[in-house]
Amino acid sequence: MKECVLTEKEAMEKAEKILSGLKVVFLATNGSHGHPNLRALAPIGRDGVSTLWFVADVHSCKIAELFSDSKAVVYGYAPRTMAEFRMWGNAAVLDDEESRERVWSEALAEYFEGKDDPNMRVLRFDAVSGVYSDKNGKGGMFKI
Amino acid sequence: MKECVLTEKEAMEKAEKILSGLKVVFLATNGSHGHPNLRALAPIGRDGVSTLWFVADVHSCKIAELFSDSKAVVYGYAPRTMAEFRMWGNAAVLDDEESRERVWSEALAEYFEGKDDPNMRVLRFDAVSGVYSDKNGKGGMFKI
Repeated sequence: MKECVLTEKEAMEKAEKILSGLKVVFLATNGSHGHPNLRALAPIGRDGVSTLWFVADVHSCKIAELFSDSKAVVYGYAPRTMAEFRMWGNAAVLDDEESRERVWSEALAEYFEGKDDPNMRVLRFDAVSGVYSDKNGKGGMFKI
Repeated sequence: MKECVLTEKEAMEKAEKILSGLKVVFLATNGSHGHPNLRALAPIGRDGVSTLWFVADVHSCKIAELFSDSKAVVYGYAPRTMAEFRMWGNAAVLDDEESRERVWSEALAEYFEGKDDPNMRVLRFDAVSGVYSDKNGKGGMFKI
């Protein structure tokens, strides 16, 4: 059972520690027909723990889902300790020059034809609140 | 971009191959305040690819969420190849003797006081349809 034993600052630091060790997080959205949807997604960059940057193909389901409802959750966990965090917030679909500059690196050239590829979109997830817990459910909540 | 190149049978076999190599899958539910929710969860057992068994503490958020809306999605991915599957369906919260017998093993004694522990509930996820895709988005859909 969940138990709050950490301050907000401690909980956020624990979440950031997990996040900094992860190659992928899990982004859940409100999908179609009343079902949630989710996928593993590699953050391209982040500003602290609360803002995560991703890229996506404009034809992907997540773009369609986020256009109709921007509410999203980011989840991450450490497979070794089973400690986990989740953050609630909104994910914006961006198509401006500055956002494309923010995320572009040559590593993306495997998937897109350059930072101006019309098939590429930038996703920026902004957390509003979050929770961290260890495998025994001990942790704490935090607001951004 | 997603591309369907597999038959239903092939797609389901690929999904089952990933599933059989996983310790945890990701279960997404419709959470509170219009946000989805999700967590890593270890299947306790399964019947083929379409029915997965889990256990949960009766006080956990997922139980509350599934009581109010049983629609759920199970997602899994192979970290090495980035191939993934997701299955749409419903997750039932069960509390009967037969279900408890189905899932109980001594490995659960770390978390519950026995198969009749009133804090334990059984979750049975029954998939209705699914999709498999490799890291390039090639795959296929399947119905159960």
